[in-house]
Amino acid sequence: MLKASAKADILKQIVDVVSTLVDEAKFNVDADGVSLKAVDPAHVAMIELTLGKGAFESYEGEETELGIDIEKLKEILKLAHAGDSVSLEHNEDKNQLIIKIGDVTRRMSLVDTAGMSDPKVPNIELPTTMRLKAEELNYGIKASESVSDHIALVADESSFEMSSEGDSDSVDYRLPKEKLISLEAKGKVRSLFPLDYFSNMARAIAGGSEVKLNLGNNYPVKLEFDIAGGNGHVRYLLAPRVES
Amino acid sequence: MLKASAKADILKQIVDVVSTLVDEAKFNVDADGVSLKAVDPAHVAMIELTLGKGAFESYEGEETELGIDIEKLKEILKLAHAGDSVSLEHNEDKNQLIIKIGDVTRRMSLVDTAGMSDPKVPNIELPTTMRLKAEELNYGIKASESVSDHIALVADESSFEMSSEGDSDSVDYRLPKEKLISLEAKGKVRSLFPLDYFSNMARAIAGGSEVKLNLGNNYPVKLEFDIAGGNGHVRYLLAPRVES
Amino acid sequence: MLKASAKADILKQIVDVVSTLVDEAKFNVDADGVSLKAVDPAHVAMIELTLGKGAFESYEGEETELGIDIEKLKEILKLAHAGDSVSLEHNEDKNQLIIKIGDVTRRMSLVDTAGMSDPKVPNIELPTTMRLKAEELNYGIKASESVSDHIALVADESSFEMSSEGDSDSVDYRLPKEKLISLEAKGKVRSLFPLDYFSNMARAIAGGSEVKLNLGNNYPVKLEFDIAGGNGHVRYLLAPRVES
Repeated sequence: MLKASAKADILKQIVDVVSTLVDEAKFNVDADGVSLKAVDPAHVAMIELTLGKGAFESYEGEETELGIDIEKLKEILKLAHAGDSVSLEHNEDKNQLIIKIGDVTRRMSLVDTAGMSDPKVPNIELPTTMRLKAEELNYGIKASESVSDHIALVADESSFEMSSEGDSDSVDYRLPKEKLISLEAKGKVRSLFPLDYFSNMARAIAGGSEVKLNLGNNYPVKLEFDIAGGNGHVRYLLAPRVES
Repeated sequence: MLKASAKADILKQIVDVVSTLVDEAKFNVDADGVSLKAVDPAHVAMIELTLGKGAFESYEGEETELGIDIEKLKEILKLAHAGDSVSLEHNEDKNQLIIKIGDVTRRMSLVDTAGMSDPKVPNIELPTTMRLKAEELNYGIKASESVSDHIALVADESSFEMSSEGDSDSVDYRLPKEKLISLEAKGKVRSLFPLDYFSNMARAIAGGSEVKLNLGNNYPVKLEFDIAGGNGHVRYLLAPRVES
Repeated sequence: MLKASAKADILKQIVDVVSTLVDEAKFNVDADGVSLKAVDPAHVAMIELTLGKGAFESYEGEETELGIDIEKLKEILKLAHAGDSVSLEHNEDKNQLIIKIGDVTRRMSLVDTAGMSDPKVPNIELPTTMRLKAEELNYGIKASESVSDHIALVADESSFEMSSEGDSDSVDYRLPKEKLISLEAKGKVRSLFPLDYFSNMARAIAGGSEVKLNLGNNYPVKLEFDIAGGNGHVRYLLAPRVES
């Protein structure tokens, strides 16, 4: 059971963050809020999202699963202006989500969640942790785009570097420790990632957000950030491309 | 004979409203102004437009017909800024329209009107009449777009509803009487329309315009609105799709 | 040898002006600045560009040639905001240009200039000279676009005219002498040009720029304008299309 209402902005943010990896997703509902775990079809990236009931204007939930067509929900949310309230109600008999925006009532059929199991999130210890603005990530990605399909993330005690190497060209975006919000590192680590995935993830983070980035040596990268004014949290995990 | 001058804005509005249904159109000119009747190639929709001489800055006209390539005229009017005056003169010998915009003189050959007869406008009595803002129509259309290719218009004494039904999804945009400018109805009426036609018509209405909408039961819908500050008037008629 | 720094705006302007005609170009560097001469692949148009050291924030140069992929440089400059400084350094060993924008270091391999000889600029005397705003040129081009693939430039003692003749339509944009900044002519001249080339050139001129236009009778047209606040100069030459 779900009967809740939230600002359109918050729902749009969730849709942006999830649509980066999957077209359809299973949301787990309970009395405390909504959560989701999903892996992209190529099994390269993973998202964990939690949204506490504090993110909603009103919230009543009992344990259930909602299979949602993310692109369809994105379209529907375009009917809402920035500050509009959107009400969501699960019609269990018809397996529909009833979405109300102003004078519009939109009934959206839910996707069957039978085949959608929650992925197991690997327990990874990553030695290097930093905090930086989403804008910095996106700028480094933009710099790499004309050079290669991959981006290397490199960090040591004094700096974080995003770099790419092409056949004849190269680029380095080097942020000294002072330009990061924080940096904790012991020694140098470096991992290489597919630029398209990393770019899609970074672009889904709202401008102005602070991102926590965890990095290792030829290990996955973890990106974490808050949504819904701190009432929700997103964790992305992206597998490295092992350099030959 | 036609020798006239008008603000570019007014001519652009006419072009927008007519290009919705036809690529070429026959304008009837006389001493009192300009008028047009046209049916779209699929014979699903019709437009009647009248533009009194008061819509022009200067106007001299004698009975004649001008066959105009609407898309070409649209392109030409892009040379004019919002408040520019556009002068129009019919060169009968060459069957050209001479269009002057500032220091530009553009000679546009006219289309042969021999095969373009005025369609007969059916005399239809529609029981339900309402007035509403063009924005409301367009919002209801937007809500329907992700659900179906058709839109049902439904009205009774208390409300006007735009709704669509898809295979698994549905949407209703229900405007209670208080949100309409006016509503006169006896009993419930409902007609179904092709969404693309209805959408093109509604989008051609300038923002902020008041629209008069006439509706019946499995009958055409009539949309009427003023243009050129009340010196012109447009009437759209759209055939219903009969529900099986 | 080149080691210099300039505002991003100035470099973007150069890239815009050169990319109109060629994808790759050879820049000649010496102690006084940078210059370029290039012909488009179809040998219809030519550009001469000079950029004095005064256009740079800092400048050290010795005689050398830099073969630059213009489109790639355009992409790289998108990393810079309007007022950003961009530093350029030629790494002769690796034949790379090292471009620094803020915390980004971008190494771009240079193109082999072996086959890129400087074209000989023909010495042409053109009888008619005028000065006008870039906007006027672009407006006349816009007016011609829906009529023909060619544009005729016509001038006499009293006016400058841009006109096009199609199968059934025609357009004239006639600027009387008073609407030009200056006009020096003896008798009437007229030359016809391919509209796409003329349009690309005119569009590359920054808004607000004053353009000097030299015209003859079935002769090339010369367009000249300053860049980099008068520290640089561009000369375009476009061959006429001889009318049959």
